[in-house]
Amino acid sequence: MPPRLTPVVDRLPETVPFVGPESIARTSGVPLRARIGANENPFGPSPAALAAMRAAAAESWHYGDPENHHLREAIAAHHRISAAAVMPGEGVDAILGMAVRLYAPPGSTVVSSLGGYPTFHYHVAGYGAALHTVPFRGVHEDIEALAAAAHETHAAMVYLANPDNPMGSWWKAESVERFIAAVPETTMIMLDEAYGEFAPAGTLPPFDLHRRNLLRMRTFSKAYGMAGARVGYVIGHPDAVRPFDRIRNHFGISNMAQAGAIAALADQEHLQWTVTAVRRSLEDTAAIVRRHGLEPLPTATNFVAVNCGRDAAYARAMLEGVAARGVFIRKPAAPGLDHYVRISAGTAEDRQLLDQALGEVLAELG
Amino acid sequence: MPPRLTPVVDRLPETVPFVGPESIARTSGVPLRARIGANENPFGPSPAALAAMRAAAAESWHYGDPENHHLREAIAAHHRISAAAVMPGEGVDAILGMAVRLYAPPGSTVVSSLGGYPTFHYHVAGYGAALHTVPFRGVHEDIEALAAAAHETHAAMVYLANPDNPMGSWWKAESVERFIAAVPETTMIMLDEAYGEFAPAGTLPPFDLHRRNLLRMRTFSKAYGMAGARVGYVIGHPDAVRPFDRIRNHFGISNMAQAGAIAALADQEHLQWTVTAVRRSLEDTAAIVRRHGLEPLPTATNFVAVNCGRDAAYARAMLEGVAARGVFIRKPAAPGLDHYVRISAGTAEDRQLLDQALGEVLAELG
Repeated sequence: MPPRLTPVVDRLPETVPFVGPESIARTSGVPLRARIGANENPFGPSPAALAAMRAAAAESWHYGDPENHHLREAIAAHHRISAAAVMPGEGVDAILGMAVRLYAPPGSTVVSSLGGYPTFHYHVAGYGAALHTVPFRGVHEDIEALAAAAHETHAAMVYLANPDNPMGSWWKAESVERFIAAVPETTMIMLDEAYGEFAPAGTLPPFDLHRRNLLRMRTFSKAYGMAGARVGYVIGHPDAVRPFDRIRNHFGISNMAQAGAIAALADQEHLQWTVTAVRRSLEDTAAIVRRHGLEPLPTATNFVAVNCGRDAAYARAMLEGVAARGVFIRKPAAPGLDHYVRISAGTAEDRQLLDQALGEVLAELG
Repeated sequence: MPPRLTPVVDRLPETVPFVGPESIARTSGVPLRARIGANENPFGPSPAALAAMRAAAAESWHYGDPENHHLREAIAAHHRISAAAVMPGEGVDAILGMAVRLYAPPGSTVVSSLGGYPTFHYHVAGYGAALHTVPFRGVHEDIEALAAAAHETHAAMVYLANPDNPMGSWWKAESVERFIAAVPETTMIMLDEAYGEFAPAGTLPPFDLHRRNLLRMRTFSKAYGMAGARVGYVIGHPDAVRPFDRIRNHFGISNMAQAGAIAALADQEHLQWTVTAVRRSLEDTAAIVRRHGLEPLPTATNFVAVNCGRDAAYARAMLEGVAARGVFIRKPAAPGLDHYVRISAGTAEDRQLLDQALGEVLAELG
């Protein structure tokens, strides 16, 4: 008899949270022409970050600093908070997993939105906690219902993405603060602000490091254009953040990623430029889909959710039609959101490919 | 009342497996002059790997392939095995953690050597399993006692590093195969071959992918000189390897690391050169310590364990003495091994600094 999987892992599905565009291309045989499905930033990292990563490649012979000292200090200085309130990780995905492992014991309940971030839900299942989902209210995560569910289920953890993925919607800081105050103090609040830098002023609450039950996630993968380098971080009360050190992969962030992130933080001019470039790109995308009779939502992110105007099957057919033309986009699967597709900011060429593909597909679908 | 840590995490110590040389330098105020304590490879990656990492930096705007398709194929081709038997991860450290999470449920027993790899032991504790240790037999991991302990404790998992860390000793392939055969088939064998490329021919058993209870770890951190890039991999029966996909951080390996690893594999000429360079470096280190009256062990790795000839306190004083001169080495802490220090392969300059520091320290210690 071979070794057995642990009971928790044995119950897990074989599915992965996201099938990558590379896999889709390999399976379908259709070469990837426009990569506008994974909420990446086509404008890339700051030239200074790129130079820092290239320079740090030569440092690959040695392990990176396991304390991420300089990176933590740089993040802390950027946000004008204490370095003790900051913990970097190999992307927000890794941080979400560690947070679940720290604060949501097997059998506990974790509250999130139906249609919320699949990788968070993957970690909840992966560590044996039970996911309790709350439907979106329209195109927004329902912060009142989330807080109420946290009470009702005695949740170990509640997750909110602000701005939201996959809809691109957002709550103003005051609403988020009301949500935070409404959650039981025994429930760890996971406030995923991966898209925060794209949001209008007044979306991100100021840091309140007195609160013990709040972890806020930020990343270099989105506005900083470094998804492929793997750096994110969590900010919270030092007592809430310190335990990450008990379980994290201390050498997990590469030298290149650490150096790149530090340089990226130092180039806020590039960040502002890229945020503007992304906004313009999405305005153009919105105009394109409108011309095709589709309805884009307002967005505080680097993607736009587009109402396809009919049912989920139609939206799915639309997605598959553009995919067959090498245009990679995604769509929400949850009821109530599944007549939308989600299109990430792209280059002018990406948008031209999208425009043409949409025209052909919509004509075909009739 | 703030959110509580999970019971498993609550019991974990605040300590980390390794304090990095950067931290030591920050704490002591002594600048790091010779970095020969973390078993890194000072000869660095292949120029082709370095070029590939630099080129891939520009791809950092997008996520890496979550299936690591090309990397898996390259590793499989290199070893002439099926890609289904290969799973990459963010260094062996991450893979060890995932393996424990998959195969050693909370409360189960994991067998390892007293003085074995601290990061493995960290993961065992981190996932709530109980570590059962077996003393070294002399300077070797005691493979007979490890197998016997796996039987006696009904172990979920048993760990063996071959070649060994921290002693640099090794077992021949036939002995390893006898060990594997002696372990219960319900116990997952973790055969950590991180130093395998440095070992004499006949050390690594050929791959037997029929065995369901064997996972073998390899890395790009040691012979391939890419510790700071974060890529390792596990090889095993496809049914034993596939479950990693249920829990891993699919986007965790950076584009730079994936590209660098593929290029590194393709440059076996560089690998051979670096293995020779490391061997010569260690021969020189051995000659240096001998001149100082210390006794180096034979080694199949990129480091050499050195018997300091007296007790653990003396070895500790020696380590601290060279550390005060900016020479970073480490030492085993386990009884029976604690009169050794462990010195990694260095450059000629590193060895010169070591030589001088040793001379001064030994004169001081008398």
